[in-house]
Amino acid sequence: MTQESDHGRMAATQGSRIDAYVDRYAARATGMVASEIRALFAVASRPEVVSLAGGMPYVTALPLDVVGELVSDLVARRGPVALQYGSGQGDPHLREQICEVMRLEGIDAGPDDVVVTVGSQQALDLITRIFIDPGDVVLAEGPSYVGALGTFSAYQAKVVHVAMDNEGIVPESLAQTIYALKAAGSRIKFLYTVPTFQNPAGVTLSVARRRQVLEICQRAGVLIIEDNPYGLLGFDGEPMRALRADNADGVVYLGSFSKTLAPGFRVGWALAPHAIREKLVLAMESAVLSHSSFTQLAVGQYLATQPWREQIKTFRELYRERRDALLDALEALMPAECTWTRPKGGFFVWASLPEGLDSKAILPRAVAERVAFVPGTGFFTDGGGARHMRLSYCYPEPERIREGVRRLARVIEQEMQLRDTFGTGYAPDHGGVDTPGPDIA
Amino acid sequence: MTQESDHGRMAATQGSRIDAYVDRYAARATGMVASEIRALFAVASRPEVVSLAGGMPYVTALPLDVVGELVSDLVARRGPVALQYGSGQGDPHLREQICEVMRLEGIDAGPDDVVVTVGSQQALDLITRIFIDPGDVVLAEGPSYVGALGTFSAYQAKVVHVAMDNEGIVPESLAQTIYALKAAGSRIKFLYTVPTFQNPAGVTLSVARRRQVLEICQRAGVLIIEDNPYGLLGFDGEPMRALRADNADGVVYLGSFSKTLAPGFRVGWALAPHAIREKLVLAMESAVLSHSSFTQLAVGQYLATQPWREQIKTFRELYRERRDALLDALEALMPAECTWTRPKGGFFVWASLPEGLDSKAILPRAVAERVAFVPGTGFFTDGGGARHMRLSYCYPEPERIREGVRRLARVIEQEMQLRDTFGTGYAPDHGGVDTPGPDIA
Repeated sequence: MTQESDHGRMAATQGSRIDAYVDRYAARATGMVASEIRALFAVASRPEVVSLAGGMPYVTALPLDVVGELVSDLVARRGPVALQYGSGQGDPHLREQICEVMRLEGIDAGPDDVVVTVGSQQALDLITRIFIDPGDVVLAEGPSYVGALGTFSAYQAKVVHVAMDNEGIVPESLAQTIYALKAAGSRIKFLYTVPTFQNPAGVTLSVARRRQVLEICQRAGVLIIEDNPYGLLGFDGEPMRALRADNADGVVYLGSFSKTLAPGFRVGWALAPHAIREKLVLAMESAVLSHSSFTQLAVGQYLATQPWREQIKTFRELYRERRDALLDALEALMPAECTWTRPKGGFFVWASLPEGLDSKAILPRAVAERVAFVPGTGFFTDGGGARHMRLSYCYPEPERIREGVRRLARVIEQEMQLRDTFGTGYAPDHGGVDTPGPDIA
Repeated sequence: MTQESDHGRMAATQGSRIDAYVDRYAARATGMVASEIRALFAVASRPEVVSLAGGMPYVTALPLDVVGELVSDLVARRGPVALQYGSGQGDPHLREQICEVMRLEGIDAGPDDVVVTVGSQQALDLITRIFIDPGDVVLAEGPSYVGALGTFSAYQAKVVHVAMDNEGIVPESLAQTIYALKAAGSRIKFLYTVPTFQNPAGVTLSVARRRQVLEICQRAGVLIIEDNPYGLLGFDGEPMRALRADNADGVVYLGSFSKTLAPGFRVGWALAPHAIREKLVLAMESAVLSHSSFTQLAVGQYLATQPWREQIKTFRELYRERRDALLDALEALMPAECTWTRPKGGFFVWASLPEGLDSKAILPRAVAERVAFVPGTGFFTDGGGARHMRLSYCYPEPERIREGVRRLARVIEQEMQLRDTFGTGYAPDHGGVDTPGPDIA
């Protein structure tokens, strides 16, 4: 290309919306296109719509006066530190407190192996950055957390889904998948799993299967990324023992204060074997220099001065009531052909539609009826999930949840009538990101 | 590799510091090794050492009581928003305020083209992510900001330095470099420049040259990344007109509140042509979901309620006094063979040592004498900078700066004597990251 033609092209597109840079992006950026469905979610954020789509925690349940005092006290006592750059690894005292939190799940770890990240999403990004070359394989539950799938695809990983059922990953499927991939010469870099109160399926890996999954991965030399944002939000009994609690060298554990305190601070973490942790810190510095000292110290002060275990209990009760509202409403109102999971913690129910219905095609009609959900296809990279949807109960109040299900059931019934009259017809997949942005409830 | 050998190897390294994952990292991670010099900077952070090494702003000059009130007021008035997830693009009102800040540098832009990032470091990371395939060329001043060079190399870019002098980038060198690279078939993705009060050189691109650089890049179809954290910290007269002010389609502008307010909030931004901005938002969501609502709203509240222009003036006066202290001390104390730049704003002076001296080899002796600086080699990717050092005057008080230069001059004089007695001998380059972590003053 000559200098003149470049010049002419840039001049021709001055001020227009044509992308003058279309042929200059990195290969990884070519798939970075927002899907049409995002516009729909923007509509879904209107107050008249009951959103069962987003994963926003109900932060209004926090003692806001206490949080307000705490942050002003932080500035008064430690302002010059809170307002300054911090270390790439994160505040040392907060890292000790994080170890204390993880002990609730049976994890015995020291602060030197913890890296504080901008939400656990950043931990996912950094882990992927240091492990994934284009074409490398990541194993993930099917369905799996959409934010993780987006990150894996941003680094051009090939995601291979492993079957799961109501007890989580099916060990036989995991072993067979690993065997087949290795036989085919694929480079498997890690298994990504949300073992407890999974997003989006709401299921939990059973105790027996935890042992099996650990054994299979250790034998095959496959690192496990255990993403556990909901682990402390169980509705019955004690927290599950983390996978990391039984294997310190083969598991990277990701945690977050987004659900146990508040996502607005963006404080998450990774607990990693030493060598990986070293690379994570360097990747962290390259990505953002350091996390916000202010929000790290605010979380630290909260943990040091407030009854945080009690607050988690408050959240648990709140979400349990909403889960009950959702399950009861589904039971009472949904057509008999629909099925769904029964989560024992966390934020999400995974529902299956009758044969011949497509959740993505239904979404616009649902939004018109003032209810929103996330279509299942976003949680798979292989086209799966068309008959499924994620329903979240974390944000709307119980009465709103019931009203949302009422509207949704009506839409589904109408769709079934159309199906029975005209036959099935799946909507084409337009590609792109099929889920709401982080701020859409 | 068989499953058994994998298993055996993992078992053999249980609990040890051997990296069991050494052959599994991505290609981009192989260079991620901390250099030995970082241990030295840890020593340099001791209070008895005068650090002319770090780029920490003097946040103690902020009205801490006001900041404390402001954040507690924020929680009281807008807690449920401040503690919640935000949008990937950033708070809309803050983006409007950012446009107001940029108007001081002649930029006319709307909030829709702004993306709020975790410091401008993250903007650099995201820009590199969407543009750089391994082997692509990034043009950068020689010397250039080490944090940017680290990010470019993390994405396997090839950095080609463009000559600069006391008026910034030399346009003829830029044109020739572009011509030669294009002739050789290289893919030049962008020019990265810190045109105003450059880090580390402390020089500023002259008005005449700004026009030339814009013209050369536009003619060649080379995007410009204008990184401008220090633009409002000039010691004389009005802020310089930004490159972005004269070309909206060919420049991505990066800004930050780290130096005009406080780095502890980690609030920076990118202003980009529309199509690039769209990809930046998707990359942002993939990297961290969204920035901290809390810190974004805190910065917004600060801008809305406080005399922020006056505060910048306070910072300017403070840094001017420290620059004067550094320049006066250098003039009075340094050996005649040394030279240095005379910055008109920002944080840094770039000093050149006498022939035959190596700044990296000198650093351990300087730290033993209780003074620290950053060796010049970290600011080049091509081995340049051995006779140079970056001296920062932003953090220590004037009397400490003078004492630091006194110690440094003594070390350099001793080195010159050794050179005259024994001849020159450069220290070997051990590779890795040659600069302090973000929290080392």
